[in-house]
Amino acid sequence: MAENIAAVLHGPCDLRIEKWPMPEINDYEVLIKIDCCGICGSDLKMYSAGRCGADRLTEPIVLGHEGAGFVIKVGSKVSSLAAGDRVAIEPTQPCRACEFCRQGRYNLCPEPRYCSTVGAPGSLCHYYKHVADFCHKIPDNLSMEEGAAVQPLAITIHACGRAGIKVGTTLLVLGAGPIGVLCAMTARAMGATKILITDVVESRLETAKKLGADFTLLIRKEYSDQQVVDKIREMLGTSPNVTMDACGFASAQRVAMMVTRSGGTVVVVGIGADTVEVPLTGALLREVDVRGAFRLLNSYPQALAAVSSGAIDLKSFITHRFPLEKAREAMEYAKTGEPMKIIIHM
Amino acid sequence: MAENIAAVLHGPCDLRIEKWPMPEINDYEVLIKIDCCGICGSDLKMYSAGRCGADRLTEPIVLGHEGAGFVIKVGSKVSSLAAGDRVAIEPTQPCRACEFCRQGRYNLCPEPRYCSTVGAPGSLCHYYKHVADFCHKIPDNLSMEEGAAVQPLAITIHACGRAGIKVGTTLLVLGAGPIGVLCAMTARAMGATKILITDVVESRLETAKKLGADFTLLIRKEYSDQQVVDKIREMLGTSPNVTMDACGFASAQRVAMMVTRSGGTVVVVGIGADTVEVPLTGALLREVDVRGAFRLLNSYPQALAAVSSGAIDLKSFITHRFPLEKAREAMEYAKTGEPMKIIIHM
Amino acid sequence: MAENIAAVLHGPCDLRIEKWPMPEINDYEVLIKIDCCGICGSDLKMYSAGRCGADRLTEPIVLGHEGAGFVIKVGSKVSSLAAGDRVAIEPTQPCRACEFCRQGRYNLCPEPRYCSTVGAPGSLCHYYKHVADFCHKIPDNLSMEEGAAVQPLAITIHACGRAGIKVGTTLLVLGAGPIGVLCAMTARAMGATKILITDVVESRLETAKKLGADFTLLIRKEYSDQQVVDKIREMLGTSPNVTMDACGFASAQRVAMMVTRSGGTVVVVGIGADTVEVPLTGALLREVDVRGAFRLLNSYPQALAAVSSGAIDLKSFITHRFPLEKAREAMEYAKTGEPMKIIIHM
Amino acid sequence: MAENIAAVLHGPCDLRIEKWPMPEINDYEVLIKIDCCGICGSDLKMYSAGRCGADRLTEPIVLGHEGAGFVIKVGSKVSSLAAGDRVAIEPTQPCRACEFCRQGRYNLCPEPRYCSTVGAPGSLCHYYKHVADFCHKIPDNLSMEEGAAVQPLAITIHACGRAGIKVGTTLLVLGAGPIGVLCAMTARAMGATKILITDVVESRLETAKKLGADFTLLIRKEYSDQQVVDKIREMLGTSPNVTMDACGFASAQRVAMMVTRSGGTVVVVGIGADTVEVPLTGALLREVDVRGAFRLLNSYPQALAAVSSGAIDLKSFITHRFPLEKAREAMEYAKTGEPMKIIIHM
Repeated sequence: MAENIAAVLHGPCDLRIEKWPMPEINDYEVLIKIDCCGICGSDLKMYSAGRCGADRLTEPIVLGHEGAGFVIKVGSKVSSLAAGDRVAIEPTQPCRACEFCRQGRYNLCPEPRYCSTVGAPGSLCHYYKHVADFCHKIPDNLSMEEGAAVQPLAITIHACGRAGIKVGTTLLVLGAGPIGVLCAMTARAMGATKILITDVVESRLETAKKLGADFTLLIRKEYSDQQVVDKIREMLGTSPNVTMDACGFASAQRVAMMVTRSGGTVVVVGIGADTVEVPLTGALLREVDVRGAFRLLNSYPQALAAVSSGAIDLKSFITHRFPLEKAREAMEYAKTGEPMKIIIHM
Repeated sequence: MAENIAAVLHGPCDLRIEKWPMPEINDYEVLIKIDCCGICGSDLKMYSAGRCGADRLTEPIVLGHEGAGFVIKVGSKVSSLAAGDRVAIEPTQPCRACEFCRQGRYNLCPEPRYCSTVGAPGSLCHYYKHVADFCHKIPDNLSMEEGAAVQPLAITIHACGRAGIKVGTTLLVLGAGPIGVLCAMTARAMGATKILITDVVESRLETAKKLGADFTLLIRKEYSDQQVVDKIREMLGTSPNVTMDACGFASAQRVAMMVTRSGGTVVVVGIGADTVEVPLTGALLREVDVRGAFRLLNSYPQALAAVSSGAIDLKSFITHRFPLEKAREAMEYAKTGEPMKIIIHM
Repeated sequence: MAENIAAVLHGPCDLRIEKWPMPEINDYEVLIKIDCCGICGSDLKMYSAGRCGADRLTEPIVLGHEGAGFVIKVGSKVSSLAAGDRVAIEPTQPCRACEFCRQGRYNLCPEPRYCSTVGAPGSLCHYYKHVADFCHKIPDNLSMEEGAAVQPLAITIHACGRAGIKVGTTLLVLGAGPIGVLCAMTARAMGATKILITDVVESRLETAKKLGADFTLLIRKEYSDQQVVDKIREMLGTSPNVTMDACGFASAQRVAMMVTRSGGTVVVVGIGADTVEVPLTGALLREVDVRGAFRLLNSYPQALAAVSSGAIDLKSFITHRFPLEKAREAMEYAKTGEPMKIIIHM
Repeated sequence: MAENIAAVLHGPCDLRIEKWPMPEINDYEVLIKIDCCGICGSDLKMYSAGRCGADRLTEPIVLGHEGAGFVIKVGSKVSSLAAGDRVAIEPTQPCRACEFCRQGRYNLCPEPRYCSTVGAPGSLCHYYKHVADFCHKIPDNLSMEEGAAVQPLAITIHACGRAGIKVGTTLLVLGAGPIGVLCAMTARAMGATKILITDVVESRLETAKKLGADFTLLIRKEYSDQQVVDKIREMLGTSPNVTMDACGFASAQRVAMMVTRSGGTVVVVGIGADTVEVPLTGALLREVDVRGAFRLLNSYPQALAAVSSGAIDLKSFITHRFPLEKAREAMEYAKTGEPMKIIIHM
């Protein structure tokens, strides 16, 4: 077997393409030859700052947690997969024994070994091992790239589930980055009928409109929170039932709390500052629930099914490709905020 | 003002087009000039047998509860509507004071004054009055016919809500009549990714396939329940998460209980025999929930929004039109089971 | 019939016992001779500051929304009540037609005519009228005082319902005022097994302990948020599943967000400052839901049943009585924060 | 180490006290010296008929799945337990990888290795091994017997959770056997305020009344279903919100469907005949949900907490003790239906 080459992050912006140990599988794992792997906002945060949310870069790690590839070897107790299978890798290996795992909330497991965090290598590499039951067969009518890109879709399916999107929901999405746009696409597939998406960058809004938003609002620096609220209500003709914050700005959270309809839900998907100053009381008095959505949960099968059935079109969501050797260039380009989804090919 | 003409049911199959008192509105009501009105399975049951579910024909009633028309007069305390508004009529007037109404389950109100039952005239007539807040403005991009046909859609939105349809749900619908087909269409708009629909009439299955089913299964008389279960699993490649019984046959309920995946849901929309012999224990041991969905609940606004946004295409669902004078012919034709949705024009 | 005397608030701390028009009932209302009425934290806020939450004192209002009394006259369309009935008054009269009322969330009705707000007189008076279906018969084994005191219990039942208290829940209550203590008592009756309650006043904690808290923590000014969190975890031996903020301090909300277990719930019952600075991101990343509970919802029947069955002991919760003439003294005494529940007798 | 003695079922009513291999633990398991073990209705079914629900006795099995004992050895990767710990054994070892396990519904796992079924020895023996995270430390203030008896409590907590018991719920329990009585006790601890329990044996009803039922109804053979319904409504003064069938008779299920309030829930805990003839349509038209509750789910910690806090009194629920040698006599005595909970001591 050839040697393993990986994109290893040594420090902020210090991403090196170098040798990495060839993984050895146990009885329950499979060895995967990675075909491609998407780049995600949290990769970008870790790449840029050496930290993302509660995670810190304390030793070199292989980046990437949106991988897809071919199974080339299976552990002795694996019956669900065989060599040759094309799989999308759900990038976590929770403990399966804590109260959260047992209650079906494994995304809250305190020891999730989430890929591309310390102690859990990512999939920006040639050879990668993973526990078999977190590898999902890619339906025949999906490309490997789509298999990789189901990861963010699995995140937005989880988030839209927590948001309680229903037929007829009026939705506001704050932030037209990849997650924001996928939230809009997912909500549409769940029956949302009016979707407004905001951003500070005009070009993102154009993409968002193409991919499914009904209305877009460019947020200018000079707008007050109340002005943003008023503009949103005017465009929608009503208040949104659900607001999804996919950018993490404190101002977005303030607007979300102010504009959401009584009895509605604010879901925060973006990771913001540790502490925020927000008009929480007003939202709570109107029983607007404020909820986070962390990573993904049991949503890979849903995501694969949705793409396979045509309910979600990921092809138009994938906008750029780079070879592994140019992973660093890909990261730097991602920083511009222009690309929707970048896929790295091995 | 002209006189009022209505389709009045005097007894089983005895539907007469005759004068009916011109309604007088109170402070909270509006007077509506009906434009058109759909015919529904429960109209058909009442027409054919003089009974439907718990309702009995004990005096002549005006049939029809899928009406749409123009507001021509509003009560003194009505501010939400004005003369000239086009409205879809949610065909109920619950008491607003019982425990069910207060808990937001007004479809369970013991005194709902549901249109076209005894004491609550239907809308197969020229002039009709209704309490204003149960009349919903029809969006500009919908026709009157679509306004009428949102009624069954509101029913299937309620039913699919009770079924817990999610992104990626594998759905089985038993019965390809209007409600079964609309269940499939609604579930599709909520993210269901694999939908199989069954019927005993081949032509219905063809329509169902055109309107959105992925798979169809013709049920032959000689099939045992187990054979039907096996065929469904084979076609779907798995067991359905949700089964919706839209026909009301005991055999359908048996199949639903047998075939639905553990932890899944059986929703019965069709009205069946009072007593059925069913393998309930096996379903309950696998925590398959068995639920009914009765009429509709807060789903008119959802239905109108879904049609207006394009999420649901009602145009292809409406297959036949008759003038009021031929209401009886329409009923007789409906009996054949061939038409999907018949609309009566005044 | 005698004249009507009421406790009318003319401005901050300007509460006058004076004549008030005798109410005249319509067909759906009943006239009630008030026996007694509790004083609540929001009465106190309105009394002290002329405002409470979004409500402002713009004209003289009759205070009081925890009334109980005898029906002495019933409207012509009232069949559920008769003269002589003892009733607890659910202090609201929602519109019954808006989306919130129809969805069973009448506490969010934008026009609730909530008693003792502008336009809706309170029940600190001798004669009071109310719509019949919001007057609940008091079970025979309850005193009138208990009938009055079910109002705050209905609030905490609603709040504990929103909190999702279950058998085995570990609960933290921040604030040992009447609502905090009733939250603890209610949660106990729902199966909470470990309850810690905090306050800045030692005497309140003693009462809380008597009425059902397992642990109490006195919050000293010098404690940092993190110190409070650590002490709570140490006392409980774990993190609470649910935290209820019954004081409205920003520091309480910060502690709530920090200390609540991943996947748990923070419910805010207290009304706090418009804007707070809080570590929201950390809570949301752990999928701790932040929810408000506003007033009460369908919980009067529950509250009356719970007291009648012995599940909740309101007798020990009622600590002080005053005659109507001394309503002002009662308010001033309530300001001290010492009494649990004060009842005013007419 | 001494040899292992177990109660092994070889065929219907053929229970032998004999040697059984000493278990050997793996890295994740603990070895337990069983102190005592309760006898359950499903043990009794298996003992009497060699089958219970879908389980069949195809080879000799060790009975018992309500065990408690001392940990005497721990696997190399076990950190949560140590030798000397007293543990209550949650009698299952699900696969942790299937869709049900991942969704937090491990009771539906198709390969649960549930104790005392074929392939998974029970705990009516001296030495028993179990995976560590399904062994729950018994709080200090609980006896070993109570530790054993939390198993049925964990079942009824799961069932009452599926039933949606709330403060103020009016509950009907059909069947005053151990599970029925524990359902009543559990529902009481969750806030149920009116509880009626029925049975065909008067002595059971007396016990039920002592342990927490408000009302009891003796069902006589000559009663029609409708008569039973009428008597229940008369005693309760209303219809129950929730009905729990803890006997599994078809007649009980019929009564449950007829008597439960619209919008309420029927939960079936008892295992009945494969096929039943029931008035399902009427229940579904009133949106009465029919749900099963299978075994237990994440409810051991809740059960232990509830007993430890005093919310549930298991001491009075344990009525009889036998030594292991008399396991067969215990089974025969259990058949009489008189004892509530029998505990076997090793």
